[in-house]
Amino acid sequence: LAGILTSDGGAILEVLSNYLAPKGYMMPLDLGAKGSCHIAGNLSTNAGGLRLLRYGSLHGTVLGIEAVLADGKGTVLSVGMPGGRAGALRKDNTGYDLKQLFIGAEGTLGIITGVSILTPRLPTAVNVAVLCVPDFEGVRRVFKETRIALGEILSAFEFFDQEGLDLVLAHTGQKAPFEGEPAGGRAFYVLLETSGSNKDHDDEKLGGLLEHLLESEIVSDGVLAQDETQVASLWSLRESLPEAAGKLGKVYKYDLSMPVKDMYSLVEEARERFKAQGLDTDGSIKATVGYGHIGDGNLHINIVASRWDEKIEQAIEPWIYEATAARNGSISAEH
Amino acid sequence: LAGILTSDGGAILEVLSNYLAPKGYMMPLDLGAKGSCHIAGNLSTNAGGLRLLRYGSLHGTVLGIEAVLADGKGTVLSVGMPGGRAGALRKDNTGYDLKQLFIGAEGTLGIITGVSILTPRLPTAVNVAVLCVPDFEGVRRVFKETRIALGEILSAFEFFDQEGLDLVLAHTGQKAPFEGEPAGGRAFYVLLETSGSNKDHDDEKLGGLLEHLLESEIVSDGVLAQDETQVASLWSLRESLPEAAGKLGKVYKYDLSMPVKDMYSLVEEARERFKAQGLDTDGSIKATVGYGHIGDGNLHINIVASRWDEKIEQAIEPWIYEATAARNGSISAEH
Repeated sequence: LAGILTSDGGAILEVLSNYLAPKGYMMPLDLGAKGSCHIAGNLSTNAGGLRLLRYGSLHGTVLGIEAVLADGKGTVLSVGMPGGRAGALRKDNTGYDLKQLFIGAEGTLGIITGVSILTPRLPTAVNVAVLCVPDFEGVRRVFKETRIALGEILSAFEFFDQEGLDLVLAHTGQKAPFEGEPAGGRAFYVLLETSGSNKDHDDEKLGGLLEHLLESEIVSDGVLAQDETQVASLWSLRESLPEAAGKLGKVYKYDLSMPVKDMYSLVEEARERFKAQGLDTDGSIKATVGYGHIGDGNLHINIVASRWDEKIEQAIEPWIYEATAARNGSISAEH
Repeated sequence: LAGILTSDGGAILEVLSNYLAPKGYMMPLDLGAKGSCHIAGNLSTNAGGLRLLRYGSLHGTVLGIEAVLADGKGTVLSVGMPGGRAGALRKDNTGYDLKQLFIGAEGTLGIITGVSILTPRLPTAVNVAVLCVPDFEGVRRVFKETRIALGEILSAFEFFDQEGLDLVLAHTGQKAPFEGEPAGGRAFYVLLETSGSNKDHDDEKLGGLLEHLLESEIVSDGVLAQDETQVASLWSLRESLPEAAGKLGKVYKYDLSMPVKDMYSLVEEARERFKAQGLDTDGSIKATVGYGHIGDGNLHINIVASRWDEKIEQAIEPWIYEATAARNGSISAEH
């Protein structure tokens, strides 16, 4: 289900995607920053992104690397690259798998100059829906039902909170995807995407799921993209979030990994903390937004402050690291 | 699309599968030896097996390991295991990913005593078909058409040759899956499996593919399992191969990785070589069988000899390593 792409380390992720598309293949990872990030940087930070749920981590999809070691001698290490002894093979178990250490090493071992990577087939049918869910527990229920109903075609399951949506709508001037306010004014939003090989089958699976979720009142509202333009506009609700936060103020960003059930209580604890310290009423903290990849147990929390400030930072750290550890989480999910 | 399983290193693969099945999950790898192999051994050899095409390599699915290092001090290394600092998280990028080095290290770095691994959802619909294809080039064509038509539900694509099928039928006493002899008496066989979440959709995709392949005469015959018993009996055609070879004589086994297009010429070259040296007519070599995982570019070649013999070995090695290298292959695909 995959071809193999070999490229220079400096290639831009989006350029590689565009190169593969007419050939019927795609990159196994996708990020908001795809227009500017380099594939070597994606490997060095072990970027996960929006497609990890479906295509897995770079540890599984990268077949080879070429790197200049940080040994002061410019030694070149080439593992699993075409032109090397073995070429880019899907399977090769000779020796230790040294290339794995470079994935996520943040450049401390050397600079990646070449990459060989598995590229899945480009899907012929893509559907995107955004759902409005009354509470975070509901997000988990939607995830459970979605995994069963959509099975192998589910390719993204993202969530963001009301504060995140408000931020994006104010920033982009986009129309809200739902009419009227959600009950209590505080809802959660789920963006789900399917990628498959048969449009009729995928439509039927997704249609059945949406009907079930609405009827059983697990979700309060939902919108399904009708064309490519709407696919892009629904995705932008999620993808514009970091940009919208950046426009509002200085953003303290954290990228955390933890069991899904404990994910959102961390955002709520942060808000209570800032409130108790008066940081929200005095305008120091303008927004606290939670979003991320539910399927991967990956929470992005963006705390938007009016300025870089010692006092604000002390309200966040080391508390946020302790709160993550208390939830058996990791403070470095992706980057 | 996956839960997380934590187990002792000594757990038998099949026991883990049976433990997960009632919970709706499965192991991301499957091997003929599942009834006796230990999960720690699967990791140490980086076993690929029958599901790699769909669920990817252990480098992507293993989240954590616990190992006793081979440092003579009994040092225990625990990375990404629950109870450790971070627990079993889908994403964790703190520090170097040391666990990756143990995957495929053949036990040289230490003994794996615990494993944490992603477990995909058990499919609710499974279909198996075996196709008869006139030549090896046809196998590649079938693979290409299959990837397009079955897309995300394709879970196995195995091939074996006429000599392999003959061996299995003689060994098991099973009836041939097809009536009559293939044209010229030498055909290839493809076993393909789909795993999905909606039986009607999967039946429609697979039915459409088979009809197309038969009509366009890319395959000369095909059989689709009608029930669980037939699924097992079709799979046994492929899975009994190593056993059938072992019953016939002493087996020189090689597990090679190379570009698919050059795969079978290596088997043919071996046969010609044995013929030129008179090793087939004098009964030294009883069969030369090629089979393997087309999707992974992984060829198993089994050379069945009447006895372990210096002369026979010299006819095979180092030629087979040179022939693999000449095809840009690797001599250690899996084990």
